[in-house]
Amino acid sequence: MELIKGGICAAKGFQASGVHCGIRKNKTKKDLALIVSQTRAAAAATYTTNLVKGAPIAVTKANISDGYAQAVICNSGNANTCNANGTEIAQGMCALVEQYTGISAKDVVVASTGVIGQQMTLDPIADGMQSLVDGLGENSKDAAHAIMTTDTQLKEVAVSFEIGGKVCSMGGIAKGSGMIHPNMATMLCFLTTDTAITPEMLQKALSATIVDTFNMISIDGDTSTNDMVVILANGMAENPCISEAGEDFDVFCKALKELCTIISKKIAADGEGATKLLVCSVSHAETDAIARTVSKSVICSSLLKAAMFGADANWGRVLCAIGYSGAPVDIHKIDVQFHSDAGSVLVCKDGMGTDFSEPLAKEVLMRDEISIDIDLKSGDACASAFGCDLTYDYVKINGDYRT
Amino acid sequence: MELIKGGICAAKGFQASGVHCGIRKNKTKKDLALIVSQTRAAAAATYTTNLVKGAPIAVTKANISDGYAQAVICNSGNANTCNANGTEIAQGMCALVEQYTGISAKDVVVASTGVIGQQMTLDPIADGMQSLVDGLGENSKDAAHAIMTTDTQLKEVAVSFEIGGKVCSMGGIAKGSGMIHPNMATMLCFLTTDTAITPEMLQKALSATIVDTFNMISIDGDTSTNDMVVILANGMAENPCISEAGEDFDVFCKALKELCTIISKKIAADGEGATKLLVCSVSHAETDAIARTVSKSVICSSLLKAAMFGADANWGRVLCAIGYSGAPVDIHKIDVQFHSDAGSVLVCKDGMGTDFSEPLAKEVLMRDEISIDIDLKSGDACASAFGCDLTYDYVKINGDYRT
Repeated sequence: MELIKGGICAAKGFQASGVHCGIRKNKTKKDLALIVSQTRAAAAATYTTNLVKGAPIAVTKANISDGYAQAVICNSGNANTCNANGTEIAQGMCALVEQYTGISAKDVVVASTGVIGQQMTLDPIADGMQSLVDGLGENSKDAAHAIMTTDTQLKEVAVSFEIGGKVCSMGGIAKGSGMIHPNMATMLCFLTTDTAITPEMLQKALSATIVDTFNMISIDGDTSTNDMVVILANGMAENPCISEAGEDFDVFCKALKELCTIISKKIAADGEGATKLLVCSVSHAETDAIARTVSKSVICSSLLKAAMFGADANWGRVLCAIGYSGAPVDIHKIDVQFHSDAGSVLVCKDGMGTDFSEPLAKEVLMRDEISIDIDLKSGDACASAFGCDLTYDYVKINGDYRT
Repeated sequence: MELIKGGICAAKGFQASGVHCGIRKNKTKKDLALIVSQTRAAAAATYTTNLVKGAPIAVTKANISDGYAQAVICNSGNANTCNANGTEIAQGMCALVEQYTGISAKDVVVASTGVIGQQMTLDPIADGMQSLVDGLGENSKDAAHAIMTTDTQLKEVAVSFEIGGKVCSMGGIAKGSGMIHPNMATMLCFLTTDTAITPEMLQKALSATIVDTFNMISIDGDTSTNDMVVILANGMAENPCISEAGEDFDVFCKALKELCTIISKKIAADGEGATKLLVCSVSHAETDAIARTVSKSVICSSLLKAAMFGADANWGRVLCAIGYSGAPVDIHKIDVQFHSDAGSVLVCKDGMGTDFSEPLAKEVLMRDEISIDIDLKSGDACASAFGCDLTYDYVKINGDYRT
């Protein structure tokens, strides 16, 4: 497997476009994105578990219930959530795609991100459709820009791998940084691949992958409103179609997991106000569930996040977060290590503090990518959670915003 | 029921003392507290559910397993947690109380709060015992000072009420503000009463009360390491002993709940860096569990807390926290109101934003005690959670602390 260029256009038969249509006031900010496949594609998706869902989710769910889609239309600047005509707008966007591309409205994935509870009309979108469609090409970056809201970094990645002797590609764009003002559509990720795979196996792969990737991200504990992750697979790589478990499916899942892990880290690193990417890796847990619960608990801890901002090797807070995580662990077996490209330092062994070098620890923690490694010494399961430090800027972005 | 003076010495037969014995370097900071009852008292307690527990907890548990105690000794400056000789030290403190007061070591509640993983010896405590015991009297405030760590406010309260024609009193002191440096003993609360009640009914009352008080506090999501809440009831009010459910038990529970609610609010208001006390009250929930889950979810939300710091009437974040709380609610029935002594403003009705006055909302939210009221319109259950805003000072206190 290797990283390649092209983002969501890396896979055969996918084109993308991104324009400014007028939803956002700032003319330099793109706000409408389109992704199309040359042929109908197997489609799978996962959605937020937040009871509050934007109208686009129900419409998308209905459209891909048959397992197929051919386009994705997404706007930023308005989340199309908590407004009265939401479903009408979402369906209207699908209809506009059909009108301008010939692709059936029922084969369109629709998404929105931005402010909630704000009136929305189709007018700017309708106005922008012609240039949106005219702009279709190898334009993954334009689409990636068009879906961004508070992100400071574009999130795009692609990989290539081999299945059945055929080269397959998979790429993705994503957005998600936190929430500002009433904005609930925090995380969107669109994935494309030319692998031939049935809708059922595609959904299986996606559902399994998000467990250890997107669902392991926490920026501020409020990001479980991850809106949508969608993957389209159009089969144009012409590999033997993956229709059951086996080696080919494993290769596919591995590529998908790699891609989603990279994207998850980009999202975590771009958390509002973040200065550091934090990865908490738990090893030798008794079960996968324990490993995930423990790593997420640590990543979500405000005290741990603040300590990382201050480059403070505060192992006690790690132990504390493990202790209240709800997972049954033997606290007398826990080892904790901090590491980064500046080195590593063991700060806790068997649940007790070690005599570690504070200067070394400070150096390790002054880097912008830090790993908090926890060894539970109780089994073979492991998991990683992704997050970021808690900074003054987080408070400023989210507290000082005056309506 | 009325508020009275005296704190933990308000109830008949209780005396207290607080001295500086030398655990803390700062000679002006008291670090050793003692509470004694003239007679053996029914005792009940609740402890942290964090798997990481300080040594004093196990020793206290063992000592009051027979339902009785007569003294409380507590030091600050060292949490006696994660050190090798913890149990020895905790038992040694009980033995010192016996040596200096004649009260059996097995009737002593022992607690510690402060830095963890730091060596601790009995020496300073032994050195301070004489002046500690000499200082016994109506000295609730001295004891309250001695147990404080990062608190900026002393927490002491007392109430009187009537049972069976007899005047009963109940008082308490507490500490708890957040966590700094490896410090896990965040919350301690000692309660005394002269009500006559059996150990079983006392435990029943306490266990029921903490559910809606201490367990509903969240300062930073890391405070579930509440160390200990202990109540001693020595019967010196000479009311008919409460040995079963009924009207007298109800009066007792009501007083206990009032006291614990006041203390819980004081703890929440003194959260690290806090400028505002936040109370999230949920009404008309289908079940108590739903009401508690929803109110706690809102109080724990970093985004909501930051918005309160910024006096930003961000109802979307309230909805979001409700939506991901895990509680089944009908989002199309939710009303949200912010209120304070400056007024109140309905910001969300039936799950949709209202056309509220931003200037009024700003005035309401500029106060230092804010209520976030959520009406779920689905039943009769209610609950309140207590917390505080997320501020730059929280980040400063917890991030900028250099070891």
